[in-house]
Amino acid sequence: MMSEVNNIEVISDQLGDQKLSKEVNNDVNGDEDKVDPWNVCSNSATGVDYDKLIVRFGCSKLTDDILQRMETLTNQRVHHFLRRKIFFSHRDLHVILKRYEEKQPFFLYTGRGPSSSALHLGHLIPFIFTKWLQETFNVPLVIQMTDDEKYLWKGLSIDEIKKATKENIKDIIAMGFDVNKTFIFSDLSFIGKCPAFYENIIKVQRSVTFNQVKGIFGFGDSDCIGKIGFPAIQAAPSFSSSFPFIFKEKKDIPVLIPCAIDQDPYFRMTRDVAPKLSKPKPALIHSTFLPALTGAQTKMSASDPNNSIFLTDSANQIKNKINRYAFSGGGATIDEHRANGGNCDIDIAFQYLKFFLEDDNRLEQYRTDYSSGQLLTGDLKKELIGIIQKIVSQHQENRKKVTDEMVDQFMALRNLNF
Amino acid sequence: MMSEVNNIEVISDQLGDQKLSKEVNNDVNGDEDKVDPWNVCSNSATGVDYDKLIVRFGCSKLTDDILQRMETLTNQRVHHFLRRKIFFSHRDLHVILKRYEEKQPFFLYTGRGPSSSALHLGHLIPFIFTKWLQETFNVPLVIQMTDDEKYLWKGLSIDEIKKATKENIKDIIAMGFDVNKTFIFSDLSFIGKCPAFYENIIKVQRSVTFNQVKGIFGFGDSDCIGKIGFPAIQAAPSFSSSFPFIFKEKKDIPVLIPCAIDQDPYFRMTRDVAPKLSKPKPALIHSTFLPALTGAQTKMSASDPNNSIFLTDSANQIKNKINRYAFSGGGATIDEHRANGGNCDIDIAFQYLKFFLEDDNRLEQYRTDYSSGQLLTGDLKKELIGIIQKIVSQHQENRKKVTDEMVDQFMALRNLNF
Repeated sequence: MMSEVNNIEVISDQLGDQKLSKEVNNDVNGDEDKVDPWNVCSNSATGVDYDKLIVRFGCSKLTDDILQRMETLTNQRVHHFLRRKIFFSHRDLHVILKRYEEKQPFFLYTGRGPSSSALHLGHLIPFIFTKWLQETFNVPLVIQMTDDEKYLWKGLSIDEIKKATKENIKDIIAMGFDVNKTFIFSDLSFIGKCPAFYENIIKVQRSVTFNQVKGIFGFGDSDCIGKIGFPAIQAAPSFSSSFPFIFKEKKDIPVLIPCAIDQDPYFRMTRDVAPKLSKPKPALIHSTFLPALTGAQTKMSASDPNNSIFLTDSANQIKNKINRYAFSGGGATIDEHRANGGNCDIDIAFQYLKFFLEDDNRLEQYRTDYSSGQLLTGDLKKELIGIIQKIVSQHQENRKKVTDEMVDQFMALRNLNF
Repeated sequence: MMSEVNNIEVISDQLGDQKLSKEVNNDVNGDEDKVDPWNVCSNSATGVDYDKLIVRFGCSKLTDDILQRMETLTNQRVHHFLRRKIFFSHRDLHVILKRYEEKQPFFLYTGRGPSSSALHLGHLIPFIFTKWLQETFNVPLVIQMTDDEKYLWKGLSIDEIKKATKENIKDIIAMGFDVNKTFIFSDLSFIGKCPAFYENIIKVQRSVTFNQVKGIFGFGDSDCIGKIGFPAIQAAPSFSSSFPFIFKEKKDIPVLIPCAIDQDPYFRMTRDVAPKLSKPKPALIHSTFLPALTGAQTKMSASDPNNSIFLTDSANQIKNKINRYAFSGGGATIDEHRANGGNCDIDIAFQYLKFFLEDDNRLEQYRTDYSSGQLLTGDLKKELIGIIQKIVSQHQENRKKVTDEMVDQFMALRNLNF
């Protein structure tokens, strides 16, 4: 559980982001969730306390009112990630919805840090949702591969990072993004192709001090200067002027950024800087994390194969991992379970069904039956295995069809249809 | 005079640059020369004590032995900037001379920070000497315009900096560099055109910590993150792999960097980093500063019109500035001067003749006659005025012939002849 004493001083949106949010750099202690771009962990079996994170980060809860407004505007049900508050928080989403209502353009920006070529299920979440946003609102999308970030943070060579980046891009393309509306770029190649992008990077870098990145990201004096400058590189795609080949003279088109909540520090910084550069503040919509198989104390991680289901796993591997490692919220024995029921809030199979079972009625039925003890952990796991096997095998099918030429097409500097 | 207590701990070349030089960040005090990329000042009328600077920076004195070797190798007299120790210090120059002897390639790299469109005489010094080096050794030359640095340090807009950059480039071209052997680039445009350059920047940025740039450049916590990352951008052109269109697969061609001594901190850092990146250390040859008109306590500065002779000054302006402002080392009255003689070491007219009068015999004659009191300050100034008027009017003639097309030619990414 997070300590009641907030470890971050946040100047909230309501105060106009006048000052950069300032974080006191204490080490994580036992009572506190740690959520930043490089660490996510909690000591609670139910995982990160997202309500407290909203207060700590100074963002806004995604209320039923906003979801209702979204449904009215788009004339369709919102995605189950929204209905179930898997995307749970936002900044300025109403600004974007108002633009949509007024038929003013906006664009989407999301990204991935290609630290390894193995994507896991957790990596899919922002992309699944971004695809839904793109289809629902019919807007251009830019996807940043922060290969330079991974080069700076991991002990890998440029060549290793480049290889992982290409593999990751193929996985992203396999999710079915529309090439006519989607531009995918890697920093290591795009910075060397687009002077307008570097101009925005340097503008952000002139507007942010070391003190500020120290406060926001916890950087220290022994960090390399690449890390210290990097936040500007993740900030710059928030501005339409970074993509003159897409947006031409329209330098003030605002962006909506779907991302996991751990990326918020970058965009908190970007929102603070934007007015100084006479640019619109990025709007955000934040997701929770897909928990690790062994429990919600941390998110899925590419570095622990038993904690994560990879997009390259076979049907059998998926079955074995879920059966062996997925943390159970059920009773210690069948009799105990029948008597007391299971705890859906900590049961990983149930948590995964929340992410991947689209049918609300069936999900509620599972919740009721598992909570009452009527359904066993094994039953939940069996259902989940079937769903995940289907998602992963479908992804593998799609992935096989992605060619090098398609990668080049998505990465070509070009106009987009919108 | 500089304090005897060194304010910098230098791990000298002799120790192999194992550690980055570490500078204790005290403010300048009255007894100390301040020489860094942003400040040059001394409290001595004879200006910066360059011998002490050699010790402090850990570089090597340019000895008569090396100059002799240069003359033997090139079969010609060395430039008067060398004969008069206006270029006075170096790092690893013997490595470059050895390569030349063995007919192995090297290249030259110098640069300019385009903070204003008005170049003064002091700005010419490294370029005059670089041109001589290029012609003498017949090697390719890259010239970096650090427009991003000036954007970060000065309160100017990108557009203002770009305008100054173009004007400065025209002045550089007017000095007669060979377009077939010279590539001129500005960071703001070149970074967006050459991914290999950004790769080297990020490699340097991964290898240098904030602590290190704090020690070398005196950066503090309230400096913007752009400044903190910038040294890598001035370091990267030291590596031939930053210019694949010139050097192709030859990623290990070493560089010789002619520059004023105030730029040494950048390359001290680069030399420390190079072995970690398996790249050759840059060699350097350092110049002293052309003193300001009003005295050698500081160098010429673009921000003080009476202290500097600009390349746009008319013959009359040159005459008036030298007559009115050039600090005299002569006696207070003619009688006193005839009796005691003048002091060439502090007389600005004589100091300028050292830079701009090529004839050694005449210069020595002036020294003798002025020191003895036979020549008056006015005589020295008259000689200097004629020389400077000729240099500046010739430059203005050449400058008129430089077209936008020529700028594009020098800046085009292309192969060079060598």
